[in-house]
Amino acid sequence: MAGSVGLHRVIEPAGVLPQAAWRLDASPEIGPDEVRIRVQRLNLDAASFRQLAQKHGGDGAKIRAEVLEIVGTRGKMHNPVTGSGGMLIGVVEEVGPESPLPVKQGDRVATLVSLTLTPLRITDGLANWDGRSEQVPADGTAILFGRSIVGVLPDDLPAELALAVYDVCGAPALVDRVVRNYREPAVLVLGGAGKSGSLSLAAAKRAGARTTAIVVSEAERDALAQAGVADEIAIADARNPVEVAQKAGGADITVVCVDVPGCEHGAILATAEKGTVIFFSMATSFSAAALGAEGLAADVTMLVGNGYVPGHADFAVDLLRTTPAVRALFEKRIAGD
Amino acid sequence: MAGSVGLHRVIEPAGVLPQAAWRLDASPEIGPDEVRIRVQRLNLDAASFRQLAQKHGGDGAKIRAEVLEIVGTRGKMHNPVTGSGGMLIGVVEEVGPESPLPVKQGDRVATLVSLTLTPLRITDGLANWDGRSEQVPADGTAILFGRSIVGVLPDDLPAELALAVYDVCGAPALVDRVVRNYREPAVLVLGGAGKSGSLSLAAAKRAGARTTAIVVSEAERDALAQAGVADEIAIADARNPVEVAQKAGGADITVVCVDVPGCEHGAILATAEKGTVIFFSMATSFSAAALGAEGLAADVTMLVGNGYVPGHADFAVDLLRTTPAVRALFEKRIAGD
Repeated sequence: MAGSVGLHRVIEPAGVLPQAAWRLDASPEIGPDEVRIRVQRLNLDAASFRQLAQKHGGDGAKIRAEVLEIVGTRGKMHNPVTGSGGMLIGVVEEVGPESPLPVKQGDRVATLVSLTLTPLRITDGLANWDGRSEQVPADGTAILFGRSIVGVLPDDLPAELALAVYDVCGAPALVDRVVRNYREPAVLVLGGAGKSGSLSLAAAKRAGARTTAIVVSEAERDALAQAGVADEIAIADARNPVEVAQKAGGADITVVCVDVPGCEHGAILATAEKGTVIFFSMATSFSAAALGAEGLAADVTMLVGNGYVPGHADFAVDLLRTTPAVRALFEKRIAGD
Repeated sequence: MAGSVGLHRVIEPAGVLPQAAWRLDASPEIGPDEVRIRVQRLNLDAASFRQLAQKHGGDGAKIRAEVLEIVGTRGKMHNPVTGSGGMLIGVVEEVGPESPLPVKQGDRVATLVSLTLTPLRITDGLANWDGRSEQVPADGTAILFGRSIVGVLPDDLPAELALAVYDVCGAPALVDRVVRNYREPAVLVLGGAGKSGSLSLAAAKRAGARTTAIVVSEAERDALAQAGVADEIAIADARNPVEVAQKAGGADITVVCVDVPGCEHGAILATAEKGTVIFFSMATSFSAAALGAEGLAADVTMLVGNGYVPGHADFAVDLLRTTPAVRALFEKRIAGD
C-alpha cells in the first residue's frame, strides 16, 4: 500500500502524498511496482498555462524557462501559483515486475493522473517548444506508481485528440452519474463550448437531460450550436451572477467548466433548490462556494469535480466517436491552440 | 428574485452580490421583503478581530475607531484585509409585508448569514465596547434580505451557547442527510472534539452510523470519550494521510472538521470506494481535493460543506439539548475562549 501511492518518491516535506509534496525524486530508475514512460509531450493545465502566459506577458522564452525551472526544482510540473499540472503522452519504456497497471513496453500511453504528482525529468531543455501553447513537445522520463491511471492511446484517434479528451474525461463521466440521479433534469453548463463543457453537454444529453450552455462570445455560440449538444445557448459573463441567473436560472444541475475565478456565485444562484453544482474548474475557490451558498440560503449539493470515475477515459472517447460534431469542436480547438 | 438577494442595496461595484460588494446601502428603511433588526451585539469573526488587534497593538480605542470606520465606509462589517465578517444578535424591529423569513416583531434573533453581506448602521459609536474582545455591544440597525437565514434564540439556552451552535449548524444537518443515503455506514470525523466535529458525530450516531473520531491530543480524546458520540477515537495528525488511513481507514463517510490546511489527502485515502468526503473546514483547498482524488484513483464523492441546509439551526440545537455531554463540551469550549 505505502509504495503504491509513491510515498518513497517524496523528498519534502516528509509524510505527505506526492501531490502535496514540494519536491519529488524524479530518478528514472523504477521500483518493483512502478512504470517508466519516455515522455513525448506535456499538456499543461489551461489555468496553469494562462497564469504563466500572463505573468510573462506572452514571452515564450520566459514561459519556457519557468516551466523548466519548476520541473527542475520540484521534480514535477506543478505550478506553485495555480496548484495545477496537466498530463503527458509517451511510450512505456520499462514496467516493474509488480506493477498492476495494464500496460506493456512499447505501448503509447497518456497518463490520466495529474502532472502535479508525476515524477518528471526533462532532458531536452524543451528545445522544440516555443512557449506559446499548452502543448509542449518534450523529451525526458516520467514515473507512474502502482496506484495510478493510464490510458493506452486508441488507434483510431490522433494522439492530440485523445489527449485532449483524456484531459477532461472525468467531467462527462461524473455528469452522467449525477444526471442519472434526477428525472429528466435541466442541466446548465457554464463554459459549454470548451473541452470539458462540450463533453459534459454531450454526456448530459445522452443521459436524457435538457441542456443549456452559457458561453462568452458569439463565435463560441455559433461553434457550439453546430455541435447539437445544447438545447439552448446564452451569451453571458459567467462571473456575473445576476446575468447568469437571469439568462439560465432554475437548473437542476449546474456544471462549472469556466477556467476563471469568480464563477461560484452565478452557478449557485442559477441552480434550483435540491439541485447540484459540479465544480470542474480548477479556478474554483472553496470558501467562495461554501460561503456563497450559505449567504444565498441555497439548498444545493456542491461537488468537487473528481477527475476519476471508473471507466471515464473509455466513456469520453466513446462520446467523441459517437458525436461527430463534438469531435469537430475538439479538432477546431486543437488546430487553434 | 433580484430584490430578494439584496441587489438593490449594492452601491458599488454594480452587478455583484452584496457579499462581493465594496459598499452597501445600509439605510434603515426596509423594502417590502426585508427585515430590520435593532442590533444588540456583534460577534466579530475571530480572524478579523485578530487582524485588527495586531494592527493596532491591542489599543482598544484604535480598534473601535477602525470598526466604526469600516462600517461607516462599507455599510457592513466586512474586514477588507481578512475578507471576513461575523454574525450579530438583535431584536426584530420591523418585518416587510412580503418577507418570507419566519420571524415577527420582538423576536430575539441571531443572523446566520455573514456580516460581510448584511447592511449595518451603528448609532452609538460603540460607546459600550472597550475594543478588546470579539463580542461587541452595539446599538444600530441591520437589514436582512428576503433570501436570508435567521435563527430565533431559544429561551432555554444562553445566547452565547446558541451562537456557538448556530456558527457550525450546517455540519450536523448535512452529515445527517448524507448518512441516510447509506445503510449503517462507518463515519469518520477528522477533528471530532471540536464544535462542528462533535455535533457531526452526534448527528451521525443518531442517524444510525458507526462513528470514529480522529483527534489531535489525549486531552481531546478524554473530553470526547465522555460525550459518548464516538464509538472509537484515535489520536493522529489529520494532515498525515498515511497515519489517518492506517488508524481509521475504510470509512463510508469522512467528515473534515479540522481548520488547518492539508487534510484533504488523508480524508480521501481513509474513505472506501463509493464513499463520500464532506469538507467543512474553510482551510480546504479545492485543487488539493480534486487532484488528490484523481491522483489516488479514488472513486469517492466529495462535497463542499454547504453552511445551509433547511432547518439546520433547529436541528443542531435539538442535538445539543438531547446530548447533554455534547452540550458540556460546548460549554467548556465557551468558558475557555
